[in-house]
Amino acid sequence: MIRMLFTAMSLAALFAPLALAEIRTKTVEYKQGEAMLEGYLAWDDAAKGKRPGVLVVHDWMGVGPYAKSRTEQLARLGYIVLAADIYGKGVRPQNPQEASQQAGLYKKDRALMRARVNAALETLRGIEGVDAKRIAAIGYCFGGTTVIELARSGAEIAGVVSFHGGLDSPSPADGKNIKAKVLALHGADDPFVPAADLAAFEEEMRKGGVDWQLVKYGGAVHSFTHQDAGSDNSKGAAYNERADRRSWEAMKAFFGEILK
Amino acid sequence: MIRMLFTAMSLAALFAPLALAEIRTKTVEYKQGEAMLEGYLAWDDAAKGKRPGVLVVHDWMGVGPYAKSRTEQLARLGYIVLAADIYGKGVRPQNPQEASQQAGLYKKDRALMRARVNAALETLRGIEGVDAKRIAAIGYCFGGTTVIELARSGAEIAGVVSFHGGLDSPSPADGKNIKAKVLALHGADDPFVPAADLAAFEEEMRKGGVDWQLVKYGGAVHSFTHQDAGSDNSKGAAYNERADRRSWEAMKAFFGEILK
Repeated sequence: MIRMLFTAMSLAALFAPLALAEIRTKTVEYKQGEAMLEGYLAWDDAAKGKRPGVLVVHDWMGVGPYAKSRTEQLARLGYIVLAADIYGKGVRPQNPQEASQQAGLYKKDRALMRARVNAALETLRGIEGVDAKRIAAIGYCFGGTTVIELARSGAEIAGVVSFHGGLDSPSPADGKNIKAKVLALHGADDPFVPAADLAAFEEEMRKGGVDWQLVKYGGAVHSFTHQDAGSDNSKGAAYNERADRRSWEAMKAFFGEILK
Repeated sequence: MIRMLFTAMSLAALFAPLALAEIRTKTVEYKQGEAMLEGYLAWDDAAKGKRPGVLVVHDWMGVGPYAKSRTEQLARLGYIVLAADIYGKGVRPQNPQEASQQAGLYKKDRALMRARVNAALETLRGIEGVDAKRIAAIGYCFGGTTVIELARSGAEIAGVVSFHGGLDSPSPADGKNIKAKVLALHGADDPFVPAADLAAFEEEMRKGGVDWQLVKYGGAVHSFTHQDAGSDNSKGAAYNERADRRSWEAMKAFFGEILK
């Protein structure tokens, strides 16, 4: 009797994500104004129908191995995922000096930062298979700041997740524009995000009536998700396996809520 | 062929939690010094073998309907769960005045608070079926403070979870005694936990080298998990469905990590 409850078809459905995942990737060119940008798309080619989309915004190194790896990791969860290119096609910093210089351009010009990330959002929205109503964005460090700016721009997306992103804003009143749910994942010992920035961020979210959450991971500093950041907290940036794992799980739970 | 992979036995195991959950409850008397205490135990009578145990510490109203309901909810997750009685058998406040008076006794006498909660922990540890090495504790409001004091007492447990608990400590150096992982779930607009207490708590955890996490839920005030707290944030205590749901999920994820 019990065997009759489980047809071959239902068993296949039960194990489909495991059995059929087939991640494909490609570069995607798009424009913001006159600037040519080159993102990186990843998706499960075996999946069918409309699916949620996720935008991944790179850290200060641009669309490199780290951003691509996270993009693929998210595609394995079933999302159609675009690594946004904020810097522009061919602009790929080779060292921290170049990275700092590039990131600085956009941190100082939030309007340009917003324009660049919104161009990526529109590109993702237009990709076949993406359910335009179920889109979220995540970002690391510089990208964390960028996805919060995306929210501040009033973007119509379900939510944004910042991993050890800078939380400061030159125009805190823009918190009132935010429609996305905001999840900030923060290393409690991150010396690059001053306490005053954290307090201002909370106040911005509060005054803006935003649906926001902040998680502080004890013992974690900046870049806690980056394995190549080493393990010396005294440098201010270091990998923290525990915080990396927990923050990824927090993101998954958040997506489970907002992208269902 | 595929059918051979799934015997009736493996299918039964797959669906066992759903099919067989049968929650039983009973009161449990135990002592701390000369004081008689009366806790409330809940477990799934259909489960077999050693399982993790969870201690639930009540809010200022004592072991009442709310604490019992959470205790049963945790039992349905597969844990053996004891609602601790901090106040003593028969001491069941009938109104906020009585509750405040009772809670105040223990908030002022942390040594007694620790003795009471440790007595409950030892009782839970001795209950048949409980895996003494896989025990966690959660608490609400007053109980949140109490489970953190349990950790500060050096208790050998996997972790503690505070839901909108007071985080202050009269002896912050005791953070160094903490062996449990600590998860504090906090309403970002909770007026009963001053910013100075939060900062001192973080510093205590930091100096103690504790594995700690703090989650701030935007838009939530004190008592955010209590449906009978109403919905008027301006009163300082109110139910918040979103924060209630998210904090429960955060606890489940934490337990998934520490009680596996």
